[in-house]
Amino acid sequence: MPGQKKYFISPNIDDDTLTQKIKGTDQDNNPINIKVIQETSLTIFLNNQEIVTLMCIADHPKYLAIGYLLNQNMIKINEKIKSIDLDEELGVIIIRTSKKTNYEKILKKKITTSGCAQGTIFGNIYEEIKKIKITSKIKIKHKWIYELSKKINLTPSLYLEAGAVHGCVIAEQNNPLIYMEDVGRHNAVDKISGYMFLNNINPKNKIFYTTGRLTSEMIIKTVKMGIPILISRSGFTSWGVKLAKQTNLTLIGRAKGKKYITLSGNHRIIDQ
Amino acid sequence: MPGQKKYFISPNIDDDTLTQKIKGTDQDNNPINIKVIQETSLTIFLNNQEIVTLMCIADHPKYLAIGYLLNQNMIKINEKIKSIDLDEELGVIIIRTSKKTNYEKILKKKITTSGCAQGTIFGNIYEEIKKIKITSKIKIKHKWIYELSKKINLTPSLYLEAGAVHGCVIAEQNNPLIYMEDVGRHNAVDKISGYMFLNNINPKNKIFYTTGRLTSEMIIKTVKMGIPILISRSGFTSWGVKLAKQTNLTLIGRAKGKKYITLSGNHRIIDQ
Repeated sequence: MPGQKKYFISPNIDDDTLTQKIKGTDQDNNPINIKVIQETSLTIFLNNQEIVTLMCIADHPKYLAIGYLLNQNMIKINEKIKSIDLDEELGVIIIRTSKKTNYEKILKKKITTSGCAQGTIFGNIYEEIKKIKITSKIKIKHKWIYELSKKINLTPSLYLEAGAVHGCVIAEQNNPLIYMEDVGRHNAVDKISGYMFLNNINPKNKIFYTTGRLTSEMIIKTVKMGIPILISRSGFTSWGVKLAKQTNLTLIGRAKGKKYITLSGNHRIIDQ
Repeated sequence: MPGQKKYFISPNIDDDTLTQKIKGTDQDNNPINIKVIQETSLTIFLNNQEIVTLMCIADHPKYLAIGYLLNQNMIKINEKIKSIDLDEELGVIIIRTSKKTNYEKILKKKITTSGCAQGTIFGNIYEEIKKIKITSKIKIKHKWIYELSKKINLTPSLYLEAGAVHGCVIAEQNNPLIYMEDVGRHNAVDKISGYMFLNNINPKNKIFYTTGRLTSEMIIKTVKMGIPILISRSGFTSWGVKLAKQTNLTLIGRAKGKKYITLSGNHRIIDQ
């Protein structure tokens, strides 16, 4: 696309390990060969503690693990990561931090949330988020909303290759920069968080685009990342809208073609 | 629709508590009023133990709680339910069984799965499912697959009213009978399980239709319910297909308009 900046990172459709060809039949009983997404399991350890096993796409275990721990409040934004060790064959990743951690107690009390898997969020995150006010003064031009959707939809992706995945994108103005996919939309967000953390990317002038619905935990993750604008092609839920208003997040949903609906933070959209 | 049997149970679009009207703006900055889904939290107790808090739609807490516990292997199919107590204001439901239960240990080890939330499934369920072979000899006519999709799409639903929910349907031949919706597709399946358990409905001659993707945990829940045919308008993942083949489940995906793809158990489809 003319004027399209290069992505920092985007789906690698040439990686054969992420999809699998399967024989089946179509509606006329003709044999067909289709590509389906390859799920894999990843067990995350934080220091000496097993935290969770996620079903995911195996493209970015490092970003996924770091992002998961960040979004679950298990590592803090100023935390020092000592090492990241991945055993690809076992599907195990071990994150080591300078500080000692112990989550025995907190692991027992989980809220299973409404969106996609790994929506397990600790109750205290809700309390933390409610107090945050996003102060970023960036604006988004009306036309960027269309342009972003179009550019993202035209980017080669596992979704276009095999379906059954969600996509999450970080953009600056009308340029998509980071594009992650996963079977669970929360994994896709967590990969984004992990990438931004490890590459020290400023969230305050960024726009977050997701194919998934705007449920409360999606808002929570966006606010935790410090991103002021969230766009989705899907719909809203009431708690998501409530949290977006409380935190002064710009929330744009049902963005399809040249239509969209804004339910919070309309002041960041400019009529151009 | 002529010849349409009545649903046993289907979405109640007249229940004002399930949606909320919210003021926003459209793409031209005109004020609009849209209906969004109302999420609520439900905490499930089994006997004296707090099991989980789910974000869900508040329409069928009883079916959701029973179905959740069944699908997590926390109550067995032959278990006697002594009482079900719902405190609507607190969002708490207490299920009491004749047998004593203790899940302290098992609650610590969860796998967070790839689909939608509440995809938390204990590792031992995978092992249990792999051994099951579905022996039901029922057939599905080619044309029923279209007819079912069409009937379901035309049924009044929260999805048509407010979007942002998944739907799950149990059908017999080309008649949809039980239609549940929720913000999490796993909640929708669990409500179906709970309804079938409490109403003693024979699964062996049923067809399960879902709007959600055919990930492994969707296959697991279908097989656990004992239903031989699973249809989705969405796509497949590799583990889902593998499990469907192992258990002899008929797996039909990407069912849209007059198209569909079968990746397992093609022998149950007849050319009529």
